Amino acid sequence: MTDIRKFKSIYENEQKQIDRILRKSLSKRKPENLYSPAYYIIESGGKRLRPMLVLLSAKAAGGKYSDAYHTGAAVELLHNFTLVHDDIMDNADKRRGRMTLHVKYDSHTAILAGDSLLAVAYENLLKDCNGNSEIIFAAFTKGLVEVCEGQSLDKEYETREVLTLNDYLGMIKKKTAAMLEMCCSLGAVLGNGSPEEVKALSSFGKNIGIAFQVQDDLLDIIADETEFGKTIGGDLVEGKKTFLLVKALEKAKGQDKADLKALVRTKGVKPNQVQKYKKLYEKLGIIKEAQQEIKKYTSRALRSLKVLKNSEDREIFKWLAEILIKRMK
Amino acid sequence: MTDIRKFKSIYENEQKQIDRILRKSLSKRKPENLYSPAYYIIESGGKRLRPMLVLLSAKAAGGKYSDAYHTGAAVELLHNFTLVHDDIMDNADKRRGRMTLHVKYDSHTAILAGDSLLAVAYENLLKDCNGNSEIIFAAFTKGLVEVCEGQSLDKEYETREVLTLNDYLGMIKKKTAAMLEMCCSLGAVLGNGSPEEVKALSSFGKNIGIAFQVQDDLLDIIADETEFGKTIGGDLVEGKKTFLLVKALEKAKGQDKADLKALVRTKGVKPNQVQKYKKLYEKLGIIKEAQQEIKKYTSRALRSLKVLKNSEDREIFKWLAEILIKRMK
Repeated sequence: MTDIRKFKSIYENEQKQIDRILRKSLSKRKPENLYSPAYYIIESGGKRLRPMLVLLSAKAAGGKYSDAYHTGAAVELLHNFTLVHDDIMDNADKRRGRMTLHVKYDSHTAILAGDSLLAVAYENLLKDCNGNSEIIFAAFTKGLVEVCEGQSLDKEYETREVLTLNDYLGMIKKKTAAMLEMCCSLGAVLGNGSPEEVKALSSFGKNIGIAFQVQDDLLDIIADETEFGKTIGGDLVEGKKTFLLVKALEKAKGQDKADLKALVRTKGVKPNQVQKYKKLYEKLGIIKEAQQEIKKYTSRALRSLKVLKNSEDREIFKWLAEILIKRMK
Repeated sequence: MTDIRKFKSIYENEQKQIDRILRKSLSKRKPENLYSPAYYIIESGGKRLRPMLVLLSAKAAGGKYSDAYHTGAAVELLHNFTLVHDDIMDNADKRRGRMTLHVKYDSHTAILAGDSLLAVAYENLLKDCNGNSEIIFAAFTKGLVEVCEGQSLDKEYETREVLTLNDYLGMIKKKTAAMLEMCCSLGAVLGNGSPEEVKALSSFGKNIGIAFQVQDDLLDIIADETEFGKTIGGDLVEGKKTFLLVKALEKAKGQDKADLKALVRTKGVKPNQVQKYKKLYEKLGIIKEAQQEIKKYTSRALRSLKVLKNSEDREIFKWLAEILIKRMK
């Protein structure tokens, strides 16, 4: 079996373990009016990337995948909690190719279902933390705090006229990277890793998280709609301050700059203008810069894994990082 | 100093400790767009009843108030998280005599501020649980799960035509009583109480919680609006299945029953009909029955405190229970 086939098989097998716990945590649970909407988002799929980071980190730190199954489920529940609430705040209508929770039900149901996803996340977190409960709860809660702060900055930046690349990076570190950092750190602690291993894996999570978010910004404009599961150009329509927009505002001159400023001033553009801005990004070389940025943070993430003893552990993280980058094709 | 003056002084002093931690947890914290709305609800006051239950339970179980200060702040933050999200779902416009958070800001801000209140609650919870972290986190998370389930049932019951008193009690046990039970249980564990003490204090919390909710239902109809801080008759306007309505539906006959069923069918009444229903409740003897129910659960709560060694601990709980009941005047 080639490495890639082996890694794929590990991913698929472990995904099933996570899905089993997620199903057990939510499906057929009462009251149905609460848990059935909560399960709607969970069963809509997703890559279970965050749980995989937890499991792979546990293994890389010297433990077993099964040391961290419930924690894997917990981070996926936490992630879906943020998706449900963010989708309300972002007025998003599609997620993973399906209606968002607040469109399928209503926003009140979605608020409460989101809350209960978080509650059930903590419930699961309790189940693995053999002797490490304080560290585990602290790391998870830090992740929760940061993701709320990141979302707040994201919303704030939508209406702010001037934004530097540093502001943008600070925001995505909290909104996206902190959570992937948390996943790797939780896994490393549960696998009884040394302080160096915990630090190295956390650094991998943080840097791959930044790469992942820039990639997500890029996908909004260059992805295939069916595959992406979201409406293309949604960030432009919403006026979101993505890597692309912040970078374009920095580089553009003359009429291009005026067009971009107009987008900011009007807090987004009409859907029929998405193509125009896509062409502008291409003309300014922004697509290429985003790709370089993704590469930079991915390399940084992979370099931090040098301390791992087992080369196969490094290889599977490398494979995972490549999958993330390949999402754009 | 009489006992009552002494108790009042303890309450006021300890309230200040809790307020200090709450202020430290939220005020001047960045991003301001997140924590300033979160602090808005916290600084709007409230009785800090739940933190007091934590502190008094810690003391009654053999510990000190200061063993549980951060946990006291945590339960108040958790409570306010539920208020912020529930107020959105209930379309409530007033809270503690001020605009609700989603009216003062907007519902998207309120969703996220609510989330961060919960995040900061867990942050505080981490700070007291010296060696007991798993029990503390489990009890707190159970409280969170139940309060979400209780709110879901509450919303579901609004549109359900037939509801028994048992359904109602099951709902308020989760929505209100579970949280007061949790407060007493957290405090008792932090005070290093014996299993009997933890059980007795938890039972106090649960039963006083039921009394408290029936009282809250009653206040909606008989309270003074300025003092209550909410619009009188709001539950009737919202069509909420309160103790009063469920009991009235059980007892009423003929035209009275038809009127009550109409209220249920139309999912609430117009504000100018509140007085009519108040008179109907009086005529059916529902106000009196509610008062008896409050007394029943209060007595049950106080009886469970018999196991406490120190009579002053029992007395201060009794005094607190009386304050709760006196709210109606």
